[in-house]
Amino acid sequence: MVLGQDRPMRLDSGVELGPFRLAYRTYGTLNADKSNAVLVCHALTGDQYVAERHPVTGKPGWWELMVGPGRPLDPDRYFIICSNVIGGCLGSEGPKETNPATGQPWGLSFPVITIADMVRAQALLVDSFGIDRLFCVIGGSMGGMQVLQWAVSYPERVANAVPIATAARHSAQNIAFHEVGRQAIMADPDWAGGDYLSRGSKPTRGLAVARMAAHVTYLSETALHRKFGRNLQDRKAVTFGFDADFQVESYLRHQGITFVERFDANSYLYITRAMDYFDLAAEHGGVLANAFRVPGPGGVPKATPVRFCLVSFSSDWLFPTSESRAIVHALNAVAANVSFVEINTDKGHDSFLLDVPEFYQVVRGFLDGQAGAAGLKRRGA
Amino acid sequence: MVLGQDRPMRLDSGVELGPFRLAYRTYGTLNADKSNAVLVCHALTGDQYVAERHPVTGKPGWWELMVGPGRPLDPDRYFIICSNVIGGCLGSEGPKETNPATGQPWGLSFPVITIADMVRAQALLVDSFGIDRLFCVIGGSMGGMQVLQWAVSYPERVANAVPIATAARHSAQNIAFHEVGRQAIMADPDWAGGDYLSRGSKPTRGLAVARMAAHVTYLSETALHRKFGRNLQDRKAVTFGFDADFQVESYLRHQGITFVERFDANSYLYITRAMDYFDLAAEHGGVLANAFRVPGPGGVPKATPVRFCLVSFSSDWLFPTSESRAIVHALNAVAANVSFVEINTDKGHDSFLLDVPEFYQVVRGFLDGQAGAAGLKRRGA
Repeated sequence: MVLGQDRPMRLDSGVELGPFRLAYRTYGTLNADKSNAVLVCHALTGDQYVAERHPVTGKPGWWELMVGPGRPLDPDRYFIICSNVIGGCLGSEGPKETNPATGQPWGLSFPVITIADMVRAQALLVDSFGIDRLFCVIGGSMGGMQVLQWAVSYPERVANAVPIATAARHSAQNIAFHEVGRQAIMADPDWAGGDYLSRGSKPTRGLAVARMAAHVTYLSETALHRKFGRNLQDRKAVTFGFDADFQVESYLRHQGITFVERFDANSYLYITRAMDYFDLAAEHGGVLANAFRVPGPGGVPKATPVRFCLVSFSSDWLFPTSESRAIVHALNAVAANVSFVEINTDKGHDSFLLDVPEFYQVVRGFLDGQAGAAGLKRRGA
Repeated sequence: MVLGQDRPMRLDSGVELGPFRLAYRTYGTLNADKSNAVLVCHALTGDQYVAERHPVTGKPGWWELMVGPGRPLDPDRYFIICSNVIGGCLGSEGPKETNPATGQPWGLSFPVITIADMVRAQALLVDSFGIDRLFCVIGGSMGGMQVLQWAVSYPERVANAVPIATAARHSAQNIAFHEVGRQAIMADPDWAGGDYLSRGSKPTRGLAVARMAAHVTYLSETALHRKFGRNLQDRKAVTFGFDADFQVESYLRHQGITFVERFDANSYLYITRAMDYFDLAAEHGGVLANAFRVPGPGGVPKATPVRFCLVSFSSDWLFPTSESRAIVHALNAVAANVSFVEINTDKGHDSFLLDVPEFYQVVRGFLDGQAGAAGLKRRGA
């Protein structure tokens, strides 16, 4: 989908982008009154292949536990949209794509984007379907940041918001972890100041290290211990060398190697930067609650009309429950409609992608309730 | 000090090393009956310059809060020894030194060493002073691992052991973080398969990334938030670029840049590997308590004679209190003499190096008590 053709999209940086491409997938059918649309927002290294085989890796969609027949987001009931974020590398405009002005890959000449810019682009996509109001916007981690931004930027266009394992601002520790990843990429000579595509090289080593560093943060210590402990790799004793002696080392190396096949290093820089910049309260005088107020009768601010269902995971130390609780407090401060569940699991931040039945039950319960109230029917029902 | 001249030291790997150099510093005077010796064991990137200016960085000693006049380890009372671990890079035998057999830098031909090997080398150093029994062995993090190993390898040679912010085995998560650092170093083309010294290059970029990744784990989220939060670097607004916008980014980059001036990349590989391999229980049938039993009368095992004082820090997520507690449980299981304090602080793993008054009070209290019982006097007293 090419967007911003009539007029370019103005980014937070002040740069005007357009026309630009946004790659997306949909599942299910938009109903007659266009009231059954759900926007799924993906995380840092996610993409639009929510519920179908990934074209590069050949693996199943990244959220088939959430989206699909019989799943909480059933295409029989909902029209589900997921787009690759701008700055991404699976077809949407980003550093890997060609800058129409130069005919060369954008590389670092691509403008730095924000979570709000990602959401702006998605809003144009939603417009293109003629959808005024989304039944639901849902996503985990950076996807959850987009959900929050949607609710703040377009409160009248979101009926229900489900931000999962996320935060209203990126913490100092998380910025630090991102900076480690960026430095790993930029330390790779094959990165070539961001110009690697023009030169025919790829900073695979640096990107693999960035992925490994990040991957450790996606799991809990308990999960790592349960999965690997100090188990040795195919051997009965340590080798007194620097090969992967421990299973956890092989696992990490595998994560690094497979990641570079499907992801662009510059996209990694851009998307981590967008997360670092995310700070909803900062744009509202430092008071998060203000982000959730909308103009009311006589100019008196009132609570956002969006219904929220927040989910956090007990063992998530990257986006801990305290971050979700801060959002819930802000929503309560304006008397917004919010429910909040902390799921007890040892699977860490990645829980929202994993088989954690209670999590899917919570989301299903919330969505079914709201869909029932809104009169959304299953196809054929 | 050159050690292993009479006969080489047999390492855990089976390799025989010797003669080999061990660089050390001492503070204070050994008393007549050689009963006042304290061995300080340093952490991963530490060295022998405990309480004096560092010869490379010009900075104060790394533990001047613990060692010095009026400090818990007062040279007026104790003879304090600290040696650079083997595998290190400040004068002890390690990959940076010259392999006498070839006249070339050891590089990766240096044998992989373990915590027990570090302790074996220290025992030879202690022998060279004619010291039979150390009044105390003390150290934090990897230093604490050495303390534990001393107590297990030489229970009759250690009166008091103070393992701080440490563990009896390196966790899967910590192995993972180390592996990220090693991969960052080995991804740097200037590492050259470990042969960089012969080639006149240095993998400074990879080593800096390794240091940055590790440094994040040494601090708590709270400490990072308190120190930096989302504060911007010398600017009022974000720059929409990849320079260090946030103070935490500049801080991390600085940590990386300064570290490479004082540390050898191959040493980083060897020392992290030694920590990964550390697993006291594994050498004792998987039962940690067995590590703390010694042969008693009639061959019946009895508790180690070593007195322990363990310290952990509440915000240390790298070596959390649960790891210390596991050691305390094992010591209690054999009815050993142990006291344990968790210090409440938000400063993270690095607390043992920082100004946390309660921590130094605890150590002072324990040492003063034991020194009094042992009749150790201050000089001139």
